[in-house]
This record gives sequence, C-alpha cells and structure tokens, in this order.
Amino acid sequence: MQPEPAKTYPITRELEDALALVRRGCDELLIEAEFAQKLARSRATGQPLRCKLGLDPTAPDIHLGHTVVLNKLRQLQDLGHTVIFLIGDFTALIGDPSGRNTMRPPLSHEEIEANAKTYFEQAALVLDRERTEIRYNSEWAEPLGAAGMIKLAARYTLARLLERDDFAKRFRENSPIAMHELLYPLMQGYDSVALRSDIELGGTDQKFNLLVGRELQRHYGQEPQCVLTMPLLEGLDGVEKMSKSKGNYIGITEPAAEMFGKVMSISDALMWRWYDLVSLRGSDEITALKREAQEGRNPRDIKVLLAKEIVTRFHSARSASEAEREFNERFRAGAAPDEMPELTLAGEAAGGLGIVAVLKQAGLAPSSSEAVRNLEQGGVKVDGERVADRALRLGAGTYVIQVGKRKWARVTIV
Amino acid sequence: MQPEPAKTYPITRELEDALALVRRGCDELLIEAEFAQKLARSRATGQPLRCKLGLDPTAPDIHLGHTVVLNKLRQLQDLGHTVIFLIGDFTALIGDPSGRNTMRPPLSHEEIEANAKTYFEQAALVLDRERTEIRYNSEWAEPLGAAGMIKLAARYTLARLLERDDFAKRFRENSPIAMHELLYPLMQGYDSVALRSDIELGGTDQKFNLLVGRELQRHYGQEPQCVLTMPLLEGLDGVEKMSKSKGNYIGITEPAAEMFGKVMSISDALMWRWYDLVSLRGSDEITALKREAQEGRNPRDIKVLLAKEIVTRFHSARSASEAEREFNERFRAGAAPDEMPELTLAGEAAGGLGIVAVLKQAGLAPSSSEAVRNLEQGGVKVDGERVADRALRLGAGTYVIQVGKRKWARVTIV
Repeated sequence: MQPEPAKTYPITRELEDALALVRRGCDELLIEAEFAQKLARSRATGQPLRCKLGLDPTAPDIHLGHTVVLNKLRQLQDLGHTVIFLIGDFTALIGDPSGRNTMRPPLSHEEIEANAKTYFEQAALVLDRERTEIRYNSEWAEPLGAAGMIKLAARYTLARLLERDDFAKRFRENSPIAMHELLYPLMQGYDSVALRSDIELGGTDQKFNLLVGRELQRHYGQEPQCVLTMPLLEGLDGVEKMSKSKGNYIGITEPAAEMFGKVMSISDALMWRWYDLVSLRGSDEITALKREAQEGRNPRDIKVLLAKEIVTRFHSARSASEAEREFNERFRAGAAPDEMPELTLAGEAAGGLGIVAVLKQAGLAPSSSEAVRNLEQGGVKVDGERVADRALRLGAGTYVIQVGKRKWARVTIV
Repeated sequence: MQPEPAKTYPITRELEDALALVRRGCDELLIEAEFAQKLARSRATGQPLRCKLGLDPTAPDIHLGHTVVLNKLRQLQDLGHTVIFLIGDFTALIGDPSGRNTMRPPLSHEEIEANAKTYFEQAALVLDRERTEIRYNSEWAEPLGAAGMIKLAARYTLARLLERDDFAKRFRENSPIAMHELLYPLMQGYDSVALRSDIELGGTDQKFNLLVGRELQRHYGQEPQCVLTMPLLEGLDGVEKMSKSKGNYIGITEPAAEMFGKVMSISDALMWRWYDLVSLRGSDEITALKREAQEGRNPRDIKVLLAKEIVTRFHSARSASEAEREFNERFRAGAAPDEMPELTLAGEAAGGLGIVAVLKQAGLAPSSSEAVRNLEQGGVKVDGERVADRALRLGAGTYVIQVGKRKWARVTIV
C-alpha cells in the first residue's frame, strides 16, 4: 500500500529561510525536496511536523556534543514543530540477552524512569518543554507480541540489514552477529511507524537506522519520514570528537565559570564550527559576525558572545555576565607581566632539562625539594598550563614559567 | 547454564535391541550414544521419553510416504515412550507476512483446528492414541511476546542460521531472504525447549531445523534432544520419491483393494526397502523373510504379507483377506491362457504397425471400425496393459494381445 500522491505546496521565501536554518551545520538531510514539502504543508495546514529523537535511557551526563542534535530540534521547535523525545525503554528492559555485551545489563522500570527524567531535565535546557512530547516505545513494542515481531521482520531482508557498515564488517570478518542485533534496527524503525514521524534526527553514525524507519513507514503505508543527521562536535582541542573519556568536553551542568573559560580556550577556527552547531543564533547574525571578524574585529570578543550564549543557556544571563567578569579579572590577574627575568639554560646530554632542574636553576625555587612541593601543590605553570608531573622534561625552546602568583621567568633551553 | 553431568546407565542386551529397532531404516540418529543413555534412563526411572514431531497444519491427505516417520514414532510408542504431535499453529496463523509466498496464506483458528483434526485422524491409523499428546505451539509462542522473541533470537547467530543449505544458497545467489524466515527455525527450535523434548523426528530435509532445537535446549539449560531423520520413501516406481503430484503414491484412505494391488505392483527390491520403512514387523522377522527368499520362497508371497500388513493397518484384517482373495481372482481371471494363436505380421515402411491394423490382421477384430470401437471401450490390452490410443504403433517385437475376455493372440511384428 502506497500513500496517495501528495499535493504539491509552493515553497515561499520564508520557507526557504526555514529550510536553510534546518540544513545549517547538518551532515545530510534526506530527502530535502520532501522535507521542503512537509514544511510547506505544515505551514498551510497549521499541523506541526513530528520530529523524532530516539534515546537509550542509559545513565546520562550530557555534554555539549550531545546538544548538537538537541539544538537542531530546538530550531525546529522555534519554527513551530513538535519534538518527540523517544525513550527506548523496551530494548533497555531486555538488555543484551546474549550476555556478550556486559556493558548493557537489563534496566528496571525504575532505573529507566530515573535515567529518562535526568536526561530530559538536562535536554530541557535546550528544548522547549511546551513543544516536546515524551514517549516510551514499550507502549507499542510490548503489544506487538511475538507475532507482530515476525510480521515486522517480514518487512525487511537480511541483505538490506547487512548493508549497515558495522554488520557488513563483522559479517566479512566472521565475527558473530547474534540474531537479536539484527532485530534492533527494525524495532527502532518501527518506532517511526508507531509515532508517524515526519523527520528523525540523529548523529551521522545513525543514518542507517534512521533510513530503516523511512523504509518501514513506506511498507506500512505511511508517508516516509525525512532523515537529518548531524556531525559529531569536535572537542576543546578542535581535533578529536568531544567525549568524556578524552577530557575535551564541556558538561552542561558544569559551573558557569568553568564553562565560560573552556569556551574561551578554543581556537578561532573551532569557534566558527561551534557557531554553526552549538549556537542558536540566526544564520544572518552569524554571517554578520564573520564579516565583522574579517573587517578586523577581535575574534576574542566574538568568542565572548558564544561563551555568554552557552552559559546563558545552561545557567542564566546573570551567571553569564558574572562568568565574563570573573574571567576578565582572572585573565588580567593571570596575565604574564610585560617584563620578567630572562635566562638561557643548557639542556642535558639526554636532551632537554627536567622541570625540577629548570625551576631551581632559574631561581624560581630555592631547592629541588621546594620545586617538587610547588609542582605537587599545583603552583607551577609552563606557558600558562598547569604542570604537576615532576618527570616532565622541557626540550630546546623558550618557555614562560610561573610559580605561585608572582614568580615569573622566560627560560630558553639550548 | 549447562545441565549437570548425567549419571551413566548400563546398556543391556534388551536396550541394544530397542536401539537397533529405532535405528532401522533411519537416515541419521544424532547422537546415538546419548540416545542409548536416554533409553536406559527411561528404563531405569520408568519415565517415558518425549518424542516430538512438528507439523504444519496444512490441509492433509496423507500417503504412505508420510507414514515413514509415523511408523518410527509408533515403534517408540511400542517401546513405552510418548509421542508429542505438535501442531505449528502459531506460524500458520501468521502465514507468510512478506506476501512473497502466496501458497501460504494465514489460516484461521478454525481451519487449523480442522486440518489438525483430519491429520491426526489419519495419523492415528499408525500411532497409538493412548501414548500421543497433541499440542499447539501457540500455547508458548504467544506468551513469548516481542521481548521473548528478541531474547530467543539472541541465542543464535546469523552465521549458524546461514549454514542451512537453502539459506546459504539463496544468500550466495543474492536472492532475498526476509528476516522472518530466519526467525522460523528459532521458533521451531524453541518448541523443543517448551516441550522438553528428548528426541525429535523428521525427514532428512529437516535435519538443520531439528539441530536448532538441540542447540537452543542447551542454551536454556536443558539436556539436548536427540535428532532422528528418516529418508523419503520411494514411490511405486521405485525411483522417484512418493508424491501425489508424481502419481506414484498410495493414499492411506484409498480402498483396500487398490491399496493391495498397488503394493503387489512394486518391484522385489523396493519391497525390502518398504519392509524397513513401512512395515512394523520386528527386525528378526524381516531377517527371517529375507532368508526364506534366498532359500527360494516366491517373493510374491512375501509381498502379499506386506500388502496384507498395510491394508490391515489402514482398514482391517478382514479387508486385507478380502483384498487378497479379490486380487487372486482378478489375477487368475486376467491371466493369459497357456495356449493362444501365434502370428507374425510385417511392419510398415514407417516402422512398426498401427494397433488398429494389428487387431484386424490378427483376426481379433472383424473390421477397422470394430477395432476402433474395442479400443474406445477399453477392451484391448497389450502385454496386460489397457490400450485406448488408436494411434499407438507397435514396433518390432512379440506382444500378447487381448480383446475382451476371450480373444487372445501372440503377435510378432518383424
């Protein structure tokens, strides 16, 4: 059964702008022409689009990287559409029954409820609660029954599932694929059928699963959802993806001052990337800021705008101003003096010079043991970075070294 | 979880005989040593073994080929064990949801019930009703639910399922395999878990599915079932497998006389095969019959014993005696006289001679039109076979030709 051929709606200038906003920063929007029609129809009928985000109810601790998709959903909400915050409790209740993945124990109803609540409390810092529907997929997965599961499985072929990169790789390498793993994308796709989703969002790595939903909807006689994938956000270092394990992240519940300082520490190039993916400013505004930077405005000021926007979102405008003020004070206080002692030290045969020897020889510590104590107490910075490792060796080069608040030296090692 | 190491029971001479009977005619018995232990334990504890036969509740019309597995089950019943006649109603209710297989529409509860009843009424001509349990797998498949289905799927890998010949072939040839097809062997295997089956029987082509049950039982902490496969029975021609479409079958509801005559028509070699697969006589008895045949007993008499056994089973001992008497009368009545006119006729340039010309030239019909009428009325036999085709040409050779009850000639065409 195929849906009736849809009526075609005109795409106005306003809709083109909305489309451009939705597309901003995204990795792929499939199929754009279909989505334009959905937007236009929604505009004409007053019926908001249903924008799905599926989530595992694992213990959440959201960082800025997770908010990239949430931001996109917020933009859709601001355009008048509804977000469906879908908690995948059904599969979480099962866990990994093969016992292969010990990282995925079954969760109880209470744990799922608690995790989902915590997740949503954090997500609500980005999302508009009024335009968000929270749903649990056990609502339709349980009544499906064993028979429904078989009927669902009949809608998809093995070959299509093996097109998913990770399955294909494991199959090629003869790594075992337990049969239930192949059922999970179908369950996830069926969620889109049950929700009559218009568009589903996810990370780039979710593209395959989102497309399953699209295909299943077609099988069930529905208009297929569009699929919008967002790239993974680079962390503070501007290279690796933001992740807790890499330490290059900003947790959205971090104190305002830390959050502000971390945003201020990113490179100018990364700042523009974050404007696209993290900021909720309009595209026109961002274009204007870029022009100002080209015309000589200090990028630091533009970074302050981003830092304040982010702190305002996760704390408040007042906290943001406070954080800015504190940051400026610390910056002034922590700024290197214009003049300081300059020394040249000889590296050892092994290459470079140990930090303890550097501190002593530069007269920044009266003895090696005092130097070690300073390091241990966190009082030593090299080029503005705190150093605690007494085994650190500085290679040939020039370094600004600070001990405590007042002792400074510019040391060149040869 | 693995079952506790089983106690080992001694295998007596009596058990060895039982094992030999079970093994008779079978294709494979896996694993024989395990089955010997099951037999021995059952003997020691008085607990009958649970012998499973799974059936699709499709419209049944059982022929002798279908009874090969039933016979083996009957032998197990005669050894004191329980047969579980398992109706696969759960999957029959679903049908083929992919719609690819139009031969498999979903059946209603009523249709399934009716088919199962008809099937069992026929099977009960072989099985001992007292030792037969009829079960429907919807009993445990429905309560399994979608979650149970996923847990079940987690117990098996894709690679193991693709070892099944037909799946492997289709996968290799890029023929689509719908995902539900891969779930069906798991459902069937789960039946063995639910039933705590000790041994499952099936045709040779079922071996893979039966082994899935064995493996799943192990996963669910049960002692794995043994697997006994029976070969497909050759039909009346002794070459092709018995099947309705090939016309080489004996339906178990056929009249006694037809059944008797059909058994009498098989070759001596096929007769011994049928003794192994169709007869319920003990192995000692069959061995004795073979010895008698070697010592010169007419194989026809031994075939009569088989025919009477089969007719007795599906009708009654009285019907069997009646059928034998009628068969002998017909045989005598239809037998060619010791003496008859002998003629030699010249074949035509085209090769051989048309049957109408033969009848006329041999004096068996006064005219061509009379010969044609005889043919049309079914009154003409060549070498005992009725001939109705007036276009038939007889090539060079000698033929016994009969018209009506009394006109005979031995005709040689040169």
